[in-house]
Amino acid sequence: MPSPRPRRVAVFGAGGGIGAALVAQLISRDDVGEVFALSRTAPPVPADTRGKRVPLAFDLTDEASIAAAAARIAAPLDLCIIATGILTLPDGTGPEKGARQIDPAAMARVFALNTIGPALIAKHLLPLLPRDRPSVFAALSARVGSIGDNRMGGWHSYRASKAALNMLVRNFAIELGRTHRLAICVGLHPGTVDTGLSAPFQRGVPAEQLFTPELSAAHLLRVIDGLTPADSGGCFAWDGARIEP
Amino acid sequence: MPSPRPRRVAVFGAGGGIGAALVAQLISRDDVGEVFALSRTAPPVPADTRGKRVPLAFDLTDEASIAAAAARIAAPLDLCIIATGILTLPDGTGPEKGARQIDPAAMARVFALNTIGPALIAKHLLPLLPRDRPSVFAALSARVGSIGDNRMGGWHSYRASKAALNMLVRNFAIELGRTHRLAICVGLHPGTVDTGLSAPFQRGVPAEQLFTPELSAAHLLRVIDGLTPADSGGCFAWDGARIEP
Ligand SMILES: NC(=O)c1ccc[n+]([C@@H]2O[C@H](COP(=O)([O-])OP(=O)(O)OC[C@H]3O[C@@H](n4cnc5c(N)ncnc54)[C@H](OP(=O)(O)O)[C@@H]3O)[C@@H](O)[C@H]2O)c1
Ligand SMILES: NC(=O)c1ccc[n+]([C@@H]2O[C@H](COP(=O)([O-])OP(=O)(O)OC[C@H]3O[C@@H](n4cnc5c(N)ncnc54)[C@H](OP(=O)(O)O)[C@@H]3O)[C@@H](O)[C@H]2O)c1
Repeated sequence: MPSPRPRRVAVFGAGGGIGAALVAQLISRDDVGEVFALSRTAPPVPADTRGKRVPLAFDLTDEASIAAAAARIAAPLDLCIIATGILTLPDGTGPEKGARQIDPAAMARVFALNTIGPALIAKHLLPLLPRDRPSVFAALSARVGSIGDNRMGGWHSYRASKAALNMLVRNFAIELGRTHRLAICVGLHPGTVDTGLSAPFQRGVPAEQLFTPELSAAHLLRVIDGLTPADSGGCFAWDGARIEP
Repeated sequence: MPSPRPRRVAVFGAGGGIGAALVAQLISRDDVGEVFALSRTAPPVPADTRGKRVPLAFDLTDEASIAAAAARIAAPLDLCIIATGILTLPDGTGPEKGARQIDPAAMARVFALNTIGPALIAKHLLPLLPRDRPSVFAALSARVGSIGDNRMGGWHSYRASKAALNMLVRNFAIELGRTHRLAICVGLHPGTVDTGLSAPFQRGVPAEQLFTPELSAAHLLRVIDGLTPADSGGCFAWDGARIEP
Protein backbone atom coordinates (compact mmCIF):
# COMPACT_ATOMS: atom_id res chain seq x y z
CA MET A 1 0.00 0.00 0.00
CA PRO A 2 1.45 3.41 -0.89
CA SER A 3 1.94 5.61 2.12
CA PRO A 4 -0.59 8.47 2.16
CA ARG A 5 0.65 11.85 0.95
CA PRO A 6 1.58 14.27 3.74
CA ARG A 7 -1.34 16.36 4.96
CA ARG A 8 -1.49 20.00 3.91
CA VAL A 9 -2.48 22.22 6.82
CA ALA A 10 -3.39 25.89 7.41
CA VAL A 11 -3.53 27.75 10.73
CA PHE A 12 -5.13 31.21 10.75
CA GLY A 13 -3.87 33.27 13.69
CA ALA A 14 -0.43 31.67 13.68
CA GLY A 15 0.96 34.55 15.73
CA GLY A 16 -1.49 34.02 18.57
CA GLY A 17 -0.82 32.05 21.72
CA ILE A 18 -2.69 28.90 20.75
CA GLY A 19 -2.12 29.36 17.01
CA ALA A 20 1.67 29.47 17.37
CA ALA A 21 1.66 26.32 19.50
CA LEU A 22 -0.54 24.54 16.94
CA VAL A 23 1.83 25.46 14.13
CA ALA A 24 4.89 24.23 16.06
CA GLN A 25 3.29 20.88 16.86
CA LEU A 26 1.91 20.36 13.37
CA ILE A 27 5.34 20.98 11.85
CA SER A 28 6.87 18.28 14.03
CA ARG A 29 4.45 15.61 12.80
CA ASP A 30 5.50 13.10 10.16
CA ASP A 31 2.04 12.91 8.62
CA VAL A 32 2.04 16.66 7.98
CA GLY A 33 3.71 18.36 5.02
CA GLU A 34 3.30 22.05 4.32
CA VAL A 35 1.97 24.16 7.19
CA PHE A 36 0.55 27.47 6.02
CA ALA A 37 0.95 29.81 8.97
CA LEU A 38 -1.30 32.83 8.53
CA SER A 39 -1.03 35.95 10.61
CA ARG A 40 -1.51 39.67 10.24
CA THR A 41 2.17 40.19 9.62
CA ALA A 42 3.85 37.10 8.16
CA PRO A 43 6.93 36.64 10.37
CA PRO A 44 10.28 35.42 9.01
CA VAL A 45 10.50 31.61 8.91
CA PRO A 46 12.35 30.28 11.97
CA ALA A 47 15.26 27.89 11.33
CA ASP A 48 13.76 24.76 12.89
CA THR A 49 10.66 24.23 10.76
CA ARG A 50 11.98 21.41 8.55
CA GLY A 51 11.13 23.48 5.49
CA LYS A 52 7.43 23.00 6.13
CA ARG A 53 6.38 26.40 7.39
CA VAL A 54 4.89 28.72 4.77
CA PRO A 55 4.10 32.10 6.34
CA LEU A 56 1.29 34.09 4.75
CA ALA A 57 -0.22 37.44 5.71
CA PHE A 58 -3.97 38.02 6.07
CA ASP A 59 -6.38 40.18 7.99
CA LEU A 60 -9.80 38.99 9.19
CA THR A 61 -11.36 42.28 8.13
CA ASP A 62 -9.92 42.19 4.60
CA GLU A 63 -11.70 39.63 2.43
CA ALA A 64 -9.29 40.13 -0.47
CA SER A 65 -6.39 39.06 1.75
CA ILE A 66 -8.24 35.87 2.67
CA ALA A 67 -9.08 35.15 -0.97
CA ALA A 68 -5.44 35.70 -1.92
CA ALA A 69 -4.26 33.37 0.85
CA ALA A 70 -6.70 30.69 -0.34
CA ALA A 71 -5.38 31.02 -3.90
CA ARG A 72 -1.81 30.63 -2.63
CA ILE A 73 -2.67 27.62 -0.45
CA ALA A 74 -4.69 25.90 -3.22
CA ALA A 75 -6.37 22.50 -3.03
CA PRO A 76 -6.12 20.01 -1.49
CA LEU A 77 -6.20 21.37 2.05
CA ASP A 78 -6.62 18.61 4.63
CA LEU A 79 -6.82 20.60 7.86
CA CYS A 80 -7.75 24.23 8.44
CA ILE A 81 -7.74 25.68 11.95
CA ILE A 82 -8.96 29.18 12.77
CA ALA A 83 -7.14 30.26 15.93
CA THR A 84 -7.94 33.96 15.76
CA GLY A 85 -10.20 35.81 18.14
CA ILE A 86 -10.66 38.82 20.35
CA LEU A 87 -12.01 39.39 23.87
CA THR A 88 -10.57 42.74 24.95
CA LEU A 89 -10.70 45.47 22.30
CA PRO A 90 -7.47 46.99 20.95
CA ASP A 91 -8.17 50.19 22.93
CA GLY A 92 -8.15 48.16 26.14
CA THR A 93 -11.93 48.06 26.63
CA GLY A 94 -12.71 44.79 28.37
CA PRO A 95 -15.74 42.57 27.80
CA GLU A 96 -19.05 43.89 29.19
CA LYS A 97 -19.91 43.06 32.80
CA GLY A 98 -23.52 44.09 32.26
CA ALA A 99 -25.98 45.39 29.68
CA ARG A 100 -25.17 48.99 30.62
CA GLN A 101 -21.67 48.55 29.18
CA ILE A 102 -22.89 47.51 25.74
CA ASP A 103 -21.47 49.76 23.03
CA PRO A 104 -22.70 49.23 19.46
CA ALA A 105 -19.35 49.92 17.76
CA ALA A 106 -17.47 47.66 20.15
CA MET A 107 -20.03 44.88 19.69
CA ALA A 108 -19.86 45.25 15.92
CA ARG A 109 -16.08 44.98 16.10
CA VAL A 110 -16.28 41.74 18.09
CA PHE A 111 -18.73 40.26 15.57
CA ALA A 112 -16.44 41.37 12.71
CA LEU A 113 -13.46 39.53 14.18
CA ASN A 114 -14.98 36.52 15.97
CA THR A 115 -17.84 35.70 13.60
CA ILE A 116 -17.62 37.42 10.21
CA GLY A 117 -13.86 36.87 9.80
CA PRO A 118 -14.16 33.10 10.34
CA ALA A 119 -17.17 33.10 7.96
CA LEU A 120 -14.96 34.64 5.27
CA ILE A 121 -12.25 32.07 5.91
CA ALA A 122 -14.87 29.34 5.46
CA LYS A 123 -16.16 30.96 2.28
CA HIS A 124 -12.72 30.86 0.69
CA LEU A 125 -11.14 27.79 2.29
CA LEU A 126 -13.95 25.22 2.39
CA PRO A 127 -13.72 24.84 -1.42
CA LEU A 128 -10.13 23.61 -0.95
CA LEU A 129 -11.09 20.57 1.13
CA PRO A 130 -10.73 17.28 -0.78
CA ARG A 131 -13.83 15.29 -1.71
CA ASP A 132 -12.23 11.87 -1.59
CA ARG A 133 -10.42 11.80 1.73
CA PRO A 134 -10.93 12.94 5.32
CA SER A 135 -10.47 16.60 6.18
CA VAL A 136 -11.18 18.90 9.11
CA PHE A 137 -12.20 22.54 9.26
CA ALA A 138 -12.05 23.72 12.89
CA ALA A 139 -12.72 27.14 14.41
CA LEU A 140 -11.70 27.99 17.96
CA SER A 141 -14.88 28.92 19.74
CA ALA A 142 -15.33 29.01 23.54
CA ARG A 143 -17.39 27.28 26.20
CA VAL A 144 -18.90 30.65 27.10
CA GLY A 145 -20.37 30.65 23.57
CA SER A 146 -22.78 27.91 24.67
CA ILE A 147 -26.24 29.33 25.38
CA GLY A 148 -27.35 26.24 27.28
CA ASP A 149 -24.24 26.28 29.46
CA ASN A 150 -24.53 30.01 30.30
CA ARG A 151 -25.06 30.37 34.06
CA MET A 152 -22.97 33.47 34.79
CA GLY A 153 -23.94 35.99 32.12
CA GLY A 154 -21.73 38.93 31.15
CA TRP A 155 -19.23 39.21 28.29
CA HIS A 156 -22.18 40.02 26.02
CA SER A 157 -20.34 40.68 22.75
CA TYR A 158 -17.89 37.80 23.13
CA ARG A 159 -20.56 35.27 24.13
CA ALA A 160 -22.90 36.39 21.34
CA SER A 161 -20.12 36.33 18.73
CA LYS A 162 -19.16 32.77 19.67
CA ALA A 163 -22.80 31.58 19.71
CA ALA A 164 -23.13 33.08 16.23
CA LEU A 165 -19.89 31.35 15.21
CA ASN A 166 -21.24 28.04 16.52
CA MET A 167 -24.34 28.51 14.34
CA LEU A 168 -22.17 29.14 11.28
CA VAL A 169 -20.08 26.05 12.06
CA ARG A 170 -23.31 24.02 12.06
CA ASN A 171 -24.33 25.63 8.77
CA PHE A 172 -20.97 24.92 7.14
CA ALA A 173 -21.08 21.32 8.34
CA ILE A 174 -24.50 20.83 6.74
CA GLU A 175 -23.35 22.42 3.49
CA LEU A 176 -20.10 20.47 3.37
CA GLY A 177 -21.87 17.20 4.17
CA ARG A 178 -23.80 17.42 0.91
CA THR A 179 -20.67 17.02 -1.22
CA HIS A 180 -17.87 15.97 1.13
CA ARG A 181 -18.83 12.76 2.90
CA LEU A 182 -15.54 12.61 4.80
CA ALA A 183 -15.19 16.29 5.73
CA ILE A 184 -15.72 17.47 9.30
CA CYS A 185 -16.46 21.01 10.47
CA VAL A 186 -16.39 21.75 14.20
CA GLY A 187 -15.98 24.41 16.85
CA LEU A 188 -13.35 23.80 19.55
CA HIS A 189 -12.99 25.08 23.11
CA PRO A 190 -9.28 25.16 24.02
CA GLY A 191 -9.77 25.35 27.80
CA THR A 192 -8.54 28.36 29.73
CA VAL A 193 -5.15 28.99 28.17
CA ASP A 194 -2.36 31.30 29.28
CA THR A 195 -2.31 33.74 26.33
CA GLY A 196 -2.64 37.45 25.80
CA LEU A 197 -6.38 37.01 25.32
CA SER A 198 -7.00 35.48 28.75
CA ALA A 199 -4.26 37.34 30.64
CA PRO A 200 -6.56 39.96 32.26
CA PHE A 201 -9.01 37.26 33.41
CA GLN A 202 -6.81 34.56 34.93
CA ARG A 203 -7.27 35.60 38.55
CA GLY A 204 -9.15 32.88 40.38
CA VAL A 205 -8.38 30.22 37.79
CA PRO A 206 -6.75 27.30 39.65
CA ALA A 207 -3.21 26.69 38.30
CA GLU A 208 -4.04 23.19 37.09
CA GLN A 209 -6.94 24.59 35.05
CA LEU A 210 -4.79 27.18 33.28
CA PHE A 211 -3.19 25.40 30.33
CA THR A 212 -0.01 26.42 28.59
CA PRO A 213 -0.60 27.06 24.89
CA GLU A 214 1.48 23.93 24.19
CA LEU A 215 -0.72 21.72 26.36
CA SER A 216 -3.90 23.19 24.88
CA ALA A 217 -2.60 22.71 21.32
CA ALA A 218 -1.74 19.08 22.09
CA HIS A 219 -5.23 18.52 23.49
CA LEU A 220 -6.87 20.17 20.47
CA LEU A 221 -4.86 18.13 17.96
CA ARG A 222 -5.78 14.94 19.81
CA VAL A 223 -9.47 15.94 19.66
CA ILE A 224 -9.16 16.73 15.93
CA ASP A 225 -7.49 13.36 15.28
CA GLY A 226 -10.38 11.58 17.01
CA LEU A 227 -13.24 13.31 15.15
CA THR A 228 -15.55 11.39 12.84
CA PRO A 229 -18.02 12.78 10.28
CA ALA A 230 -20.81 12.17 12.80
CA ASP A 231 -19.23 14.91 14.95
CA SER A 232 -19.48 17.49 12.19
CA GLY A 233 -21.42 20.61 13.16
CA GLY A 234 -20.73 20.24 16.88
CA CYS A 235 -18.57 22.08 19.36
CA PHE A 236 -16.01 20.11 21.38
CA ALA A 237 -13.88 20.93 24.40
CA TRP A 238 -10.15 20.23 24.78
CA ASP A 239 -10.97 16.86 26.41
CA GLY A 240 -13.21 15.75 23.54
CA ALA A 241 -16.47 16.33 25.42
CA ARG A 242 -19.27 17.75 23.32
CA ILE A 243 -20.46 21.21 24.39
CA GLU A 244 -24.20 21.85 24.06
CA PRO A 245 -25.31 24.75 21.84
CA MET B 1 -58.53 44.81 46.96
CA PRO B 2 -57.62 47.77 44.73
CA SER B 3 -57.63 46.83 41.05
CA PRO B 4 -54.05 46.68 39.70
CA ARG B 5 -52.89 49.74 37.75
CA PRO B 6 -53.06 49.34 33.95
CA ARG B 7 -49.93 47.84 32.45
CA ARG B 8 -47.57 50.14 30.57
CA VAL B 9 -46.37 48.54 27.36
CA ALA B 10 -43.83 49.28 24.59
CA VAL B 11 -43.60 47.67 21.16
CA PHE B 12 -40.48 48.36 19.08
CA GLY B 13 -41.16 47.84 15.37
CA ALA B 14 -44.77 48.97 15.62
CA GLY B 15 -44.89 49.55 11.86
CA GLY B 16 -43.95 45.95 11.04
CA GLY B 17 -46.39 43.19 10.24
CA ILE B 18 -46.31 41.47 13.61
CA GLY B 19 -45.53 44.65 15.57
CA ALA B 20 -48.61 46.48 14.24
CA ALA B 21 -50.85 43.53 15.14
CA LEU B 22 -49.36 43.38 18.63
CA VAL B 23 -50.03 47.09 19.17
CA ALA B 24 -53.67 46.78 18.00
CA GLN B 25 -54.38 43.85 20.30
CA LEU B 26 -52.62 45.38 23.29
CA ILE B 27 -54.63 48.58 22.91
CA SER B 28 -57.87 46.61 23.05
CA ARG B 29 -57.03 44.98 26.38
CA ASP B 30 -58.52 46.31 29.58
CA ASP B 31 -55.45 45.48 31.64
CA VAL B 32 -53.29 47.64 29.38
CA GLY B 33 -52.90 51.39 29.64
CA GLU B 34 -50.43 53.34 27.57
CA VAL B 35 -48.99 51.52 24.56
CA PHE B 36 -45.78 53.09 23.31
CA ALA B 37 -45.63 52.25 19.61
CA LEU B 38 -42.08 52.70 18.35
CA SER B 39 -41.18 52.77 14.69
CA ARG B 40 -38.71 54.48 12.40
CA THR B 41 -41.23 57.12 11.47
CA ALA B 42 -43.84 57.65 14.16
CA PRO B 43 -47.16 57.48 12.28
CA PRO B 44 -50.14 59.70 13.15
CA VAL B 45 -52.31 58.16 15.87
CA PRO B 46 -55.33 56.37 14.34
CA ALA B 47 -58.74 57.32 15.73
CA ASP B 48 -59.64 54.01 17.36
CA THR B 49 -56.87 53.67 19.90
CA ARG B 50 -58.86 54.67 22.98
CA GLY B 51 -56.24 57.34 23.68
CA LYS B 52 -53.71 54.68 24.63
CA ARG B 53 -51.38 54.74 21.65
CA VAL B 54 -48.26 56.87 22.07
CA PRO B 55 -46.24 56.85 18.85
CA LEU B 56 -42.49 57.38 19.20
CA ALA B 57 -39.74 57.38 16.60
CA PHE B 58 -36.52 55.39 16.94
CA ASP B 59 -33.92 53.69 14.77
CA LEU B 60 -32.14 50.48 15.77
CA THR B 61 -28.85 51.87 14.51
CA ASP B 62 -29.12 55.13 16.48
CA GLU B 63 -28.50 54.57 20.18
CA ALA B 64 -29.39 58.16 21.06
CA SER B 65 -32.87 57.65 19.62
CA ILE B 66 -33.35 54.57 21.81
CA ALA B 67 -32.09 56.39 24.90
CA ALA B 68 -34.47 59.28 24.16
CA ALA B 69 -37.39 56.88 23.73
CA ALA B 70 -36.56 55.22 27.05
CA ALA B 71 -36.49 58.61 28.75
CA ARG B 72 -39.90 59.44 27.29
CA ILE B 73 -41.41 56.07 28.25
CA ALA B 74 -39.96 56.20 31.80
CA ALA B 75 -40.50 53.65 34.59
CA PRO B 76 -42.45 51.55 35.29
CA LEU B 77 -42.59 49.57 32.02
CA ASP B 78 -44.42 46.28 32.44
CA LEU B 79 -44.04 44.75 29.00
CA CYS B 80 -41.49 45.48 26.27
CA ILE B 81 -41.66 43.62 22.96
CA ILE B 82 -39.02 43.95 20.26
CA ALA B 83 -40.73 43.15 16.96
CA THR B 84 -38.06 44.50 14.63
CA GLY B 85 -35.87 42.43 12.36
CA ILE B 86 -34.46 41.97 8.88
CA LEU B 87 -34.02 38.99 6.58
CA THR B 88 -33.69 40.48 3.09
CA LEU B 89 -31.41 43.53 2.89
CA PRO B 90 -32.83 46.92 1.82
CA ASP B 91 -31.08 46.56 -1.57
CA GLY B 92 -33.04 43.35 -2.20
CA THR B 93 -30.19 40.95 -1.44
CA GLY B 94 -31.77 37.80 -0.04
CA PRO B 95 -30.38 35.59 2.72
CA GLU B 96 -27.39 33.43 1.76
CA LYS B 97 -28.09 30.02 0.24
CA GLY B 98 -24.49 28.93 0.78
CA ALA B 99 -21.14 30.06 2.19
CA ARG B 100 -20.11 31.47 -1.18
CA GLN B 101 -22.77 34.15 -0.88
CA ILE B 102 -21.45 35.49 2.42
CA ASP B 103 -20.67 39.19 2.19
CA PRO B 104 -19.03 40.85 5.19
CA ALA B 105 -20.89 44.16 4.92
CA ALA B 106 -24.25 42.43 4.51
CA MET B 107 -23.57 40.14 7.46
CA ALA B 108 -22.49 43.11 9.59
CA ARG B 109 -25.74 44.88 8.69
CA VAL B 110 -27.84 41.89 9.76
CA PHE B 111 -25.99 41.72 13.10
CA ALA B 112 -26.47 45.48 13.54
CA LEU B 113 -30.24 45.20 13.12
CA ASN B 114 -31.10 41.76 14.51
CA THR B 115 -28.63 41.56 17.39
CA ILE B 116 -26.99 44.86 18.30
CA GLY B 117 -30.19 46.91 17.96
CA PRO B 118 -32.11 44.67 20.38
CA ALA B 119 -29.08 44.76 22.72
CA LEU B 120 -29.31 48.55 22.77
CA ILE B 121 -33.02 48.40 23.48
CA ALA B 122 -32.25 46.08 26.42
CA LYS B 123 -29.52 48.41 27.66
CA HIS B 124 -31.91 51.35 27.86
CA LEU B 125 -35.25 49.67 28.60
CA LEU B 126 -34.39 46.93 31.12
CA PRO B 127 -33.77 49.60 33.78
CA LEU B 128 -37.44 50.63 33.41
CA LEU B 129 -38.84 47.25 34.50
CA PRO B 130 -40.39 47.33 37.99
CA ARG B 131 -38.72 45.44 40.83
CA ASP B 132 -41.87 44.69 42.78
CA ARG B 133 -44.25 43.25 40.20
CA PRO B 134 -44.19 40.92 37.20
CA SER B 135 -42.81 42.20 33.90
CA VAL B 136 -41.77 40.76 30.55
CA PHE B 137 -39.04 41.75 28.12
CA ALA B 138 -39.48 39.76 24.90
CA ALA B 139 -37.52 39.85 21.64
CA LEU B 140 -38.82 38.25 18.46
CA SER B 141 -36.25 35.68 17.48
CA ALA B 142 -36.84 32.77 15.08
CA ARG B 143 -36.83 28.99 15.15
CA VAL B 144 -34.04 29.04 12.54
CA GLY B 145 -31.92 30.78 15.20
CA SER B 146 -31.77 27.48 17.09
CA ILE B 147 -28.41 25.77 16.54
CA GLY B 148 -29.66 22.42 17.80
CA ASP B 149 -32.72 22.54 15.55
CA ASN B 150 -30.72 23.46 12.42
CA ARG B 151 -31.07 20.66 9.87
CA MET B 152 -31.28 22.64 6.61
CA GLY B 153 -28.44 25.16 6.79
CA GLY B 154 -28.41 28.37 4.73
CA TRP B 155 -29.51 31.90 5.74
CA HIS B 156 -26.12 32.30 7.40
CA SER B 157 -26.37 35.91 8.55
CA TYR B 158 -29.98 35.66 9.73
CA ARG B 159 -29.47 32.38 11.59
CA ALA B 160 -26.23 33.62 13.22
CA SER B 161 -27.81 36.95 14.21
CA LYS B 162 -30.73 35.19 15.91
CA ALA B 163 -28.46 32.68 17.69
CA ALA B 164 -26.48 35.66 18.95
CA LEU B 165 -29.74 37.35 20.01
CA ASN B 166 -30.77 34.21 21.88
CA MET B 167 -27.46 34.32 23.77
CA LEU B 168 -28.06 37.95 24.72
CA VAL B 169 -31.59 37.12 25.89
CA ARG B 170 -30.08 34.49 28.18
CA ASN B 171 -27.53 37.00 29.42
CA PHE B 172 -30.18 39.65 30.10
CA ALA B 173 -32.34 37.10 31.92
CA ILE B 174 -29.43 36.20 34.21
CA GLU B 175 -28.65 39.86 34.86
CA LEU B 176 -32.27 40.79 35.48
CA GLY B 177 -32.80 37.80 37.77
CA ARG B 178 -30.26 39.21 40.23
CA THR B 179 -32.43 42.23 41.06
CA HIS B 180 -35.86 41.57 39.56
CA ARG B 181 -37.27 38.36 40.98
CA LEU B 182 -40.50 38.69 38.98
CA ALA B 183 -39.08 39.87 35.66
CA ILE B 184 -38.95 37.55 32.65
CA CYS B 185 -36.76 37.92 29.56
CA VAL B 186 -37.40 35.61 26.60
CA GLY B 187 -37.00 35.13 22.88
CA LEU B 188 -40.16 34.34 20.87
CA HIS B 189 -40.70 32.56 17.56
CA PRO B 190 -43.90 33.92 15.93
CA GLY B 191 -44.37 31.05 13.48
CA THR B 192 -44.26 31.69 9.74
CA VAL B 193 -46.23 34.88 9.42
CA ASP B 194 -47.53 36.62 6.31
CA THR B 195 -45.51 39.86 6.46
CA GLY B 196 -43.10 41.74 4.22
CA LEU B 197 -40.23 39.88 5.84
CA SER B 198 -41.44 36.41 4.89
CA ALA B 199 -43.16 37.35 1.60
CA PRO B 200 -40.33 36.17 -0.71
CA PHE B 201 -40.11 32.80 1.12
CA GLN B 202 -43.73 31.70 1.49
CA ARG B 203 -43.74 29.30 -1.48
CA GLY B 204 -44.14 25.77 -0.21
CA VAL B 205 -45.51 26.86 3.17
CA PRO B 206 -48.89 25.08 3.63
CA ALA B 207 -51.70 27.65 3.99
CA GLU B 208 -52.61 26.52 7.51
CA GLN B 209 -48.98 27.04 8.59
CA LEU B 210 -48.84 30.61 7.30
CA PHE B 211 -50.30 32.78 10.07
CA THR B 212 -51.87 36.18 9.62
CA PRO B 213 -50.07 38.81 11.71
CA GLU B 214 -53.23 39.00 13.85
CA LEU B 215 -53.20 35.28 14.61
CA SER B 216 -49.48 35.32 15.36
CA ALA B 217 -49.85 38.34 17.65
CA ALA B 218 -52.69 36.62 19.52
CA HIS B 219 -50.55 33.49 19.94
CA LEU B 220 -47.57 35.52 21.15
CA LEU B 221 -49.60 37.48 23.71
CA ARG B 222 -51.05 34.23 25.03
CA VAL B 223 -47.51 32.82 25.39
CA ILE B 224 -46.36 36.00 27.15
CA ASP B 225 -49.34 35.83 29.54
CA GLY B 226 -48.41 32.26 30.45
CA LEU B 227 -44.72 32.83 31.18
CA THR B 228 -43.27 32.37 34.66
CA PRO B 229 -39.88 33.53 35.98
CA ALA B 230 -38.62 29.95 35.51
CA ASP B 231 -38.99 30.48 31.76
CA SER B 232 -36.68 33.51 31.77
CA GLY B 233 -33.70 33.16 29.42
CA GLY B 234 -35.42 30.71 27.09
CA CYS B 235 -36.85 30.92 23.60
CA PHE B 236 -40.50 29.95 23.03
CA ALA B 237 -42.56 29.28 19.93
CA TRP B 238 -46.05 30.71 19.20
CA ASP B 239 -47.58 27.59 20.77
CA GLY B 240 -45.63 27.94 24.01
CA ALA B 241 -43.20 25.10 23.25
CA ARG B 242 -39.63 25.76 24.32
CA ILE B 243 -37.12 25.92 21.47
CA GLU B 244 -33.70 24.43 22.23
CA PRO B 245 -30.68 26.75 21.86
N1 LIG C 1 -7.02 31.75 25.84
C1 LIG C 1 -8.13 31.23 26.32
O1 LIG C 1 -8.26 31.00 27.54
C2 LIG C 1 -9.28 30.92 25.40
C3 LIG C 1 -10.45 30.33 25.96
C4 LIG C 1 -11.52 30.03 25.13
C5 LIG C 1 -11.42 30.30 23.78
N2 LIG C 1 -10.31 30.88 23.26
C6 LIG C 1 -10.27 31.16 21.81
O2 LIG C 1 -9.08 30.68 21.24
C7 LIG C 1 -8.73 31.49 20.11
C8 LIG C 1 -7.26 31.87 20.19
O3 LIG C 1 -7.07 32.70 21.30
P1 LIG C 1 -5.67 32.92 22.04
O4 LIG C 1 -5.91 32.68 23.47
O5 LIG C 1 -4.58 32.16 21.35
O6 LIG C 1 -5.52 34.50 21.84
P2 LIG C 1 -4.34 35.41 21.26
O7 LIG C 1 -3.02 34.92 21.72
O8 LIG C 1 -4.74 36.79 21.59
O9 LIG C 1 -4.47 35.16 19.69
C9 LIG C 1 -5.50 35.76 18.94
C10 LIG C 1 -5.09 35.79 17.50
O10 LIG C 1 -6.11 36.48 16.74
C11 LIG C 1 -5.44 37.25 15.78
N3 LIG C 1 -6.20 38.38 15.27
C12 LIG C 1 -6.83 39.36 15.96
N4 LIG C 1 -7.33 40.26 15.12
C13 LIG C 1 -7.02 39.84 13.87
C14 LIG C 1 -7.27 40.34 12.55
N5 LIG C 1 -7.95 41.47 12.34
N6 LIG C 1 -6.80 39.65 11.50
C15 LIG C 1 -6.11 38.51 11.67
N7 LIG C 1 -5.85 37.99 12.89
C16 LIG C 1 -6.30 38.66 13.96
C17 LIG C 1 -4.22 37.76 16.49
O11 LIG C 1 -3.30 38.12 15.50
P3 LIG C 1 -2.03 39.02 15.83
O12 LIG C 1 -1.03 38.05 16.38
O13 LIG C 1 -1.67 39.59 14.50
O14 LIG C 1 -2.48 40.06 16.84
C18 LIG C 1 -3.79 36.53 17.26
O15 LIG C 1 -2.99 35.71 16.47
C19 LIG C 1 -9.72 32.66 20.11
O16 LIG C 1 -10.77 32.39 19.21
C20 LIG C 1 -10.27 32.64 21.51
O17 LIG C 1 -11.58 33.19 21.57
C21 LIG C 1 -9.22 31.18 24.04
N1 LIG D 1 -42.62 36.81 9.41
C1 LIG D 1 -42.14 35.64 9.76
O1 LIG D 1 -42.49 34.60 9.17
C2 LIG D 1 -41.15 35.52 10.89
C3 LIG D 1 -40.69 34.25 11.24
C4 LIG D 1 -39.76 34.14 12.28
C5 LIG D 1 -39.33 35.27 12.94
N2 LIG D 1 -39.81 36.51 12.58
C6 LIG D 1 -39.29 37.68 13.29
O2 LIG D 1 -40.36 38.51 13.69
C7 LIG D 1 -39.89 39.87 13.77
C8 LIG D 1 -40.88 40.79 13.06
O3 LIG D 1 -40.89 40.46 11.70
P1 LIG D 1 -42.10 40.78 10.70
O4 LIG D 1 -42.41 39.50 10.01
O5 LIG D 1 -43.17 41.52 11.41
O6 LIG D 1 -41.32 41.70 9.64
P2 LIG D 1 -41.62 43.15 9.06
O7 LIG D 1 -43.06 43.32 8.77
O8 LIG D 1 -40.64 43.33 7.96
O9 LIG D 1 -41.25 44.11 10.29
C9 LIG D 1 -39.91 44.35 10.60
C10 LIG D 1 -39.83 45.62 11.41
O10 LIG D 1 -38.45 45.92 11.67
C11 LIG D 1 -38.31 47.31 11.58
N3 LIG D 1 -36.96 47.77 11.29
C12 LIG D 1 -36.12 47.39 10.30
N4 LIG D 1 -35.00 48.12 10.35
C13 LIG D 1 -35.14 49.00 11.37
C14 LIG D 1 -34.35 50.03 11.91
N5 LIG D 1 -33.12 50.32 11.42
N6 LIG D 1 -34.81 50.71 12.98
C15 LIG D 1 -36.01 50.44 13.50
N7 LIG D 1 -36.83 49.49 13.01
C16 LIG D 1 -36.39 48.77 11.96
C17 LIG D 1 -39.23 47.69 10.43
O11 LIG D 1 -39.50 49.05 10.57
P3 LIG D 1 -40.11 49.91 9.37
O12 LIG D 1 -41.58 49.63 9.45
O13 LIG D 1 -39.72 51.32 9.73
O14 LIG D 1 -39.44 49.40 8.09
C18 LIG D 1 -40.42 46.82 10.70
O15 LIG D 1 -41.29 47.45 11.59
C19 LIG D 1 -38.47 39.87 13.19
O16 LIG D 1 -37.54 39.82 14.24
C20 LIG D 1 -38.42 38.56 12.43
O17 LIG D 1 -37.08 38.06 12.34
C21 LIG D 1 -40.70 36.65 11.56
